[in-house]
Amino acid sequence: MKPPLKIALAGLGTVGAGVAKLIETNADVLSRRCGRALAITAVSAKNRGKNRGIDVSGARWFDDAVEMARSADADVVVELIGGSDGIAKQVCDAAIAARRHVVTANKAMLALHGTALARAAESAGVALGYEASVAGGIPIIHALREGLAANNLSRVYGILNGTCNYILTEMRHTKREFADVLREAQALGYAEADPSFDVDGIDAAHKLAVLTAVAFGCEVNFGGVYIEGIRHVSAQDIAYAGELGYRIKLLGIARRTEQGVEQRVHPCMVELQSSIAHVDGVYNAVVAEGDFVGRTVFQGRGAGAGPTASAVVADLIDIARGHTAPAFAVPAAALVRLPALAMDRHVGAYYIRLMVLDRPGVIADVTAALRDEEVSLESMLQRGRSPGGAVPVVLTTHATEEAAMKRALARIAALNTVVEPPRMIRIEPLEH
Amino acid sequence: MKPPLKIALAGLGTVGAGVAKLIETNADVLSRRCGRALAITAVSAKNRGKNRGIDVSGARWFDDAVEMARSADADVVVELIGGSDGIAKQVCDAAIAARRHVVTANKAMLALHGTALARAAESAGVALGYEASVAGGIPIIHALREGLAANNLSRVYGILNGTCNYILTEMRHTKREFADVLREAQALGYAEADPSFDVDGIDAAHKLAVLTAVAFGCEVNFGGVYIEGIRHVSAQDIAYAGELGYRIKLLGIARRTEQGVEQRVHPCMVELQSSIAHVDGVYNAVVAEGDFVGRTVFQGRGAGAGPTASAVVADLIDIARGHTAPAFAVPAAALVRLPALAMDRHVGAYYIRLMVLDRPGVIADVTAALRDEEVSLESMLQRGRSPGGAVPVVLTTHATEEAAMKRALARIAALNTVVEPPRMIRIEPLEH
Repeated sequence: MKPPLKIALAGLGTVGAGVAKLIETNADVLSRRCGRALAITAVSAKNRGKNRGIDVSGARWFDDAVEMARSADADVVVELIGGSDGIAKQVCDAAIAARRHVVTANKAMLALHGTALARAAESAGVALGYEASVAGGIPIIHALREGLAANNLSRVYGILNGTCNYILTEMRHTKREFADVLREAQALGYAEADPSFDVDGIDAAHKLAVLTAVAFGCEVNFGGVYIEGIRHVSAQDIAYAGELGYRIKLLGIARRTEQGVEQRVHPCMVELQSSIAHVDGVYNAVVAEGDFVGRTVFQGRGAGAGPTASAVVADLIDIARGHTAPAFAVPAAALVRLPALAMDRHVGAYYIRLMVLDRPGVIADVTAALRDEEVSLESMLQRGRSPGGAVPVVLTTHATEEAAMKRALARIAALNTVVEPPRMIRIEPLEH
Repeated sequence: MKPPLKIALAGLGTVGAGVAKLIETNADVLSRRCGRALAITAVSAKNRGKNRGIDVSGARWFDDAVEMARSADADVVVELIGGSDGIAKQVCDAAIAARRHVVTANKAMLALHGTALARAAESAGVALGYEASVAGGIPIIHALREGLAANNLSRVYGILNGTCNYILTEMRHTKREFADVLREAQALGYAEADPSFDVDGIDAAHKLAVLTAVAFGCEVNFGGVYIEGIRHVSAQDIAYAGELGYRIKLLGIARRTEQGVEQRVHPCMVELQSSIAHVDGVYNAVVAEGDFVGRTVFQGRGAGAGPTASAVVADLIDIARGHTAPAFAVPAAALVRLPALAMDRHVGAYYIRLMVLDRPGVIADVTAALRDEEVSLESMLQRGRSPGGAVPVVLTTHATEEAAMKRALARIAALNTVVEPPRMIRIEPLEH
């Protein structure tokens, strides 16, 4: 049997402790599958004394994770500190400079520095593993880089943030409003004290940028992602979605066109018949569409110590086996820079909800605004009366360009009879 | 760039032609992802003259596929002839003997000879790729061997036969009987003229035997699979399933216990809330449950030229990249022989449908039979009257041992008032 793969572990939070636990618990099966043992030889964390329920006493302790990455007796450095820059980035840079493989769960860092890291790793002849950075335990990076690698992919999309999916699911089940469910999710530990990273779509956008690069063999371009979170989704929208045969999901969508690549994160209305409509709670799901394979769907837990550790160790297994494909499936030097398609050029159908005064002529004004921008109406739903008061009106449109839709909405918002800012949710056509 | 990977293609049917087409269509992306080209240097098929819509004129033609495997100028032999023995097996044996890698979509051959082939390939230092043998385009073999390899898996199950899933879906949508829908499926080309391989569960059992080996690192044991097909599922059962909150699916289920491994293929009642309940038509799905990752679900097209070619070429990409893990995730010499658990020892809940004479005392006799075998009733549904005639009675039980259930059914079948053989479908508890 070959000598053990020596691992330096930077960060012993939930995920780091999970990785140590997995390597200990499944030592037998890991060495059978790798033909060698996985051995944690060095660790670094903020607090040495803390009880984490794991035994890493056999590993050398480093107070300084960067120093560990530089000088530990290790083949691989596992970075589980987090944060796009700062120590996490320094640890990875130091590890690569010292010609050690890097495995990381750090989507923020990859979204901002993925291309540079891949190039540095490749120059140094080491691997950059990041299965854990997207969709937790779902082996979607492996699937795109290996299992589906025979395909030209046209679209990759999914539910990439478990917190948002949990909140939207709870809003639907309990008919409560966003703020209320968010508070509860925070109390339960499903959402952070500062939830903006999750609920404003940034976390999903980080993951989407990574997925886009590996799916299409292009440079990571986080700046090219259109981002919209779920704060403005109301209980009313969720109820109307159900009535219209949809569910509301926060999706990250990457689409390759002849002109470039479209990357967007926003709430979507998806048809009830689509597989993704039924992925609820903290589960994540990713759909990949390839020219030969058609549509494939991957579902699993998107976060948590166990699933994330499973993904981190999958990368370690690759390295232990000597399987080190280029990080983004093609050599880093060959990564292309694809134009980011502007959201204004996006073409799709839209759900619009208005609060209008219940008086004659209002609908005529609204539909005139749509007509003037050449937005074609698919359906209209007006229910209940409130003479002198306000009533909701729900519209859906045929496919239209986003810029036209926005112009029409600006006209509508300016009408005296429209008493609240119009709400707009994109309708996403998904094959099923 | 490295020299091309030279491929000898045995079999130019639907799948073989699909593989040639993929390699031609996606030549650019393949060479970017592999760092070298994939080149078909030799082909063999029954009929040289046939127009297959592909250009393999650059490849050397062999009338004899075994001779090609032995002597072609090729690094890999792709076997797409089919059949567990005969030429397909000879091609693989000859390729391995000549130290060429083997890629195959042949589940029947793997189910019967998988362990021996893996051992031979490993001795010869070549890869045995078989992603295409299970679940078409879904990269489930890669997922189990790589993406989820950090886990001890406890259960792997799925919808492994698209023909059966199509028939069961159509029966539900149209409320028609099995024979009727089968005839239509045959007319549409979704079922073979001789459908027994599919509808009797044999094809699913072949795939399950392969999945079991790679999931648990054990020898392939097709003989240990309990097999029951879908011929006895009636429109009535499907309607009752809906009423009880279930869907009927033909599942292949492999479960690892301390005693050994349970492998079974049979129709199952699965709860409507489970992901697999919503996988309809010709789609396949596989669920893997691991100790750290939890439950992951993979869905996609289970057959057809495109998806199968996608899987075949995924294996070729691994070989082109020099990634050749052991076929069943652990070295062939380390594959363990796990005891096959007897179906009589299976413990689960059951759905029973009886046709009984509509007269007093019948239910008392039926429930007495269950009590005598210590089978505990969960629910009973009797509807409609037909004094002097027969009426359906549907029962569901609590978890019970299969042997006891069978004894109880034998007693029930022997009652004078039970006018048709009892129908039994297992209720499968799935996490969701």
